Amino acid sequence: MSRTVFFVSDGTGITAETLGHALLTQFAGLEFQQFRLPFIDTEEKAREAVAQINHQAVEDGNCPLVFTTMINTVLAEIINGGQCKVFDLFSEFIQPLEKQLGVKAQPSVGAAHSNSDTESYEARMEATNYALTHDDGMSINFANADLILVGVSRSGKTPTCLYLALHFGIKAANYPLTDDDMDASQLPKFLLQNKNKLVGLTIDPERLSQIRMTRKPDSRYSSLRQCRYEVESAESLLRLAGVPIMRTTNSSVEEIASRIVSEKNIQKPHF
Amino acid sequence: MSRTVFFVSDGTGITAETLGHALLTQFAGLEFQQFRLPFIDTEEKAREAVAQINHQAVEDGNCPLVFTTMINTVLAEIINGGQCKVFDLFSEFIQPLEKQLGVKAQPSVGAAHSNSDTESYEARMEATNYALTHDDGMSINFANADLILVGVSRSGKTPTCLYLALHFGIKAANYPLTDDDMDASQLPKFLLQNKNKLVGLTIDPERLSQIRMTRKPDSRYSSLRQCRYEVESAESLLRLAGVPIMRTTNSSVEEIASRIVSEKNIQKPHF
Repeated sequence: MSRTVFFVSDGTGITAETLGHALLTQFAGLEFQQFRLPFIDTEEKAREAVAQINHQAVEDGNCPLVFTTMINTVLAEIINGGQCKVFDLFSEFIQPLEKQLGVKAQPSVGAAHSNSDTESYEARMEATNYALTHDDGMSINFANADLILVGVSRSGKTPTCLYLALHFGIKAANYPLTDDDMDASQLPKFLLQNKNKLVGLTIDPERLSQIRMTRKPDSRYSSLRQCRYEVESAESLLRLAGVPIMRTTNSSVEEIASRIVSEKNIQKPHF
Repeated sequence: MSRTVFFVSDGTGITAETLGHALLTQFAGLEFQQFRLPFIDTEEKAREAVAQINHQAVEDGNCPLVFTTMINTVLAEIINGGQCKVFDLFSEFIQPLEKQLGVKAQPSVGAAHSNSDTESYEARMEATNYALTHDDGMSINFANADLILVGVSRSGKTPTCLYLALHFGIKAANYPLTDDDMDASQLPKFLLQNKNKLVGLTIDPERLSQIRMTRKPDSRYSSLRQCRYEVESAESLLRLAGVPIMRTTNSSVEEIASRIVSEKNIQKPHF
């Protein structure tokens, strides 16, 4: 049996969805049908949202779960009037926070994901451009890199670099080890010269072969034999140079990125 | 006066940081010194975290705020023992959720950002590759695009496409309007043939000029006059074709991306 869940917000809904989703993953066996209702920022939209929730309640024969981060209390009340169980992620915490901080909150819709801080916005944009121009070994001038991800082709370097840029404003280059690199006795000089910036990504050869198959089926590139050879060579070169190695096989992009930030102890401004 | 805030988690800390940050933005005038402590997944690490928190409490002369999403209750108790005010984002909601769902939660560390769902992971990776190979008008074969973002150079198309890919698994291409396009009486045919996929991005000419200045100062490209001309031409072509237009000037990438998903009513699987 599937339960219906709504994420309702007068802003983007990103916060409601992130916490709601994290809570729901703690109920592993259950299935949830999920709907986002962002930008519910007028009374009319709030009433439309309630109509949709109530319609679902009748269809499901039980009341939907609603995770909200409404700032506007009038709109929050309208949502509370629906046939649903509301989890209000803000109201639970605002009062104890006010007590701790000794001041009243100044409600500001969408502030969490607005672009109030132009400087940090520009840092993220600059980092994204950096990732795009230093992707896949395109440039090996690493003077301005915060990090350089090294690994075999399809080990997850590009999405990780983009995530590091978009979320943390970190300039991450990436370099794919070539056949020549893997036949050598050590990592290329232009990498070793930047040893403190290096992070190795690796992946189980079986999974790598699967991923490569979807691109080039039945090729040497995607064969398990070749994948095993490349992964072994890459790992041994990285170990020899004392580069930290992250396994990407069962990790999401955000998990790998968070581990890298934590491992390299990078404290960037918060966005 | 600045208050110290810690985001502590046995997983990536992304959930703790997202909700904690959203709550703190409601206290506009205050300054917060923020630290992430992710992957606190052993008793030793939890005790180290407490030592760091307590050290800060002494240094600050008041108790730090700690936002946590600890799944492991033993570790949560260790954190609770620190000289700090703990906001436990999970424990507040797990019990009422258990009541609603009629089952006990099955604690699972890091489940929120793990890669348990291989299919959705692959959808995001495929979308990221799509964005990279269909960036900046590189390819105008839009057969597999979910969306096509159209706008002048530096209006925010590339980071938005990447965010749509990494977060929503949406395949978004982008096309920058050229001088030739802007001199014409309508959008290029290969865009009009995909009208339902089009989204226009626009930006205030003053802001655009600032952004371009950092790339090419004192050029025709970055002059306010040229920026005004391009923005006006682009907006009028988009309006003529009936394409929805989003203003990016005061919006973050996640806000623009969320607005697009909402406006185009795209319901993608949740990640």
